[in-house]
Amino acid sequence: MFLTKIISDSRLIAYPMPVCLVGAKVKGKPNFMAVGWFSKINNDPPMMMISLLKVQYTAEGIKENKVFSINFPGKNLVAETDFCGMVSGRKADKSQVFKVQYGELEDAPMISECPMCFELKLRDTIELPDMYMFIGEVVAAYADEKYVNEGKYNIAGAEPFFLIESPTYQYFELGPQFAKGFSIGEKIKVVSPK
Amino acid sequence: MFLTKIISDSRLIAYPMPVCLVGAKVKGKPNFMAVGWFSKINNDPPMMMISLLKVQYTAEGIKENKVFSINFPGKNLVAETDFCGMVSGRKADKSQVFKVQYGELEDAPMISECPMCFELKLRDTIELPDMYMFIGEVVAAYADEKYVNEGKYNIAGAEPFFLIESPTYQYFELGPQFAKGFSIGEKIKVVSPK
Repeated sequence: MFLTKIISDSRLIAYPMPVCLVGAKVKGKPNFMAVGWFSKINNDPPMMMISLLKVQYTAEGIKENKVFSINFPGKNLVAETDFCGMVSGRKADKSQVFKVQYGELEDAPMISECPMCFELKLRDTIELPDMYMFIGEVVAAYADEKYVNEGKYNIAGAEPFFLIESPTYQYFELGPQFAKGFSIGEKIKVVSPK
Repeated sequence: MFLTKIISDSRLIAYPMPVCLVGAKVKGKPNFMAVGWFSKINNDPPMMMISLLKVQYTAEGIKENKVFSINFPGKNLVAETDFCGMVSGRKADKSQVFKVQYGELEDAPMISECPMCFELKLRDTIELPDMYMFIGEVVAAYADEKYVNEGKYNIAGAEPFFLIESPTYQYFELGPQFAKGFSIGEKIKVVSPK
């Protein structure tokens, strides 16, 4: 035994979370919320999940309209992102924080200042003890053209950032590239099974 | 309209993915797989999801044993991690790559070299078009004590890293801290709704 058991407490979050802003209309008005609990979950069609507290204002809007957006901010938007994580749409009109634009889905407000945004149709809602996990299908992707070259989006160039929750809440930048994927692993050798 | 519609293709991944290693026993032997599609999804009890291609060897083991582990590697393990993403357990005996240890669940092998590991019980399996999304409840967390201080785990100190898939597959380090969470957002002011 090399590792020590510590806690099985949900406050312990063991990874730096990329941060997105989820957009939804709530009661007819655009609202945005910072979310760290999200992931891609399917290739074809492209699908993503987000997990929101049941009481969250944004959850109301997604349940009502069955569509939402996922917007990836660059680090120049850290204050706006943090605000959208601190303050509920019940208390502040967050439609004022960003320039809002729409694509194919009229109830999925996107953020023009974000280098990349996705529109999603709600495909399923999984009820968990505290949260709703919303499963969405990506119906279109939008990007600031300056980060797109030959159809490829320059993720690092768009200056994504991360939220770390332990030991304290802090935002971190992306660091330098240090290894090649699907490449550096070639040096590991194991005996093959028969 | 400020953003331009580009593609709605699943190959476009818009965020740097933290990378974990999922551990499972398959046919009685420990196996590990690099996974970027995962997230926390519930607070109490703490729950996480991972999304794996249906054909993946690790998926077989999770379906069989109903338990798995999530292990967070530091950047010193990038080659081993990349290997576990490149090569299937059907082709290589990945039980040789790491020192394996067990906690409370006898079929959830953990990686001693990882600074933090979780044991999970499978709570639900959501079938998606390409993938199985496995929903697990964290039953215990383990960490290298050198990253734990007064019960708090130093995420940044454990040197997590990220996989970026566009424009090419590359691993990136975590960068410097640049803003305080639940704090920098205070400077944003909007008119409150009536």
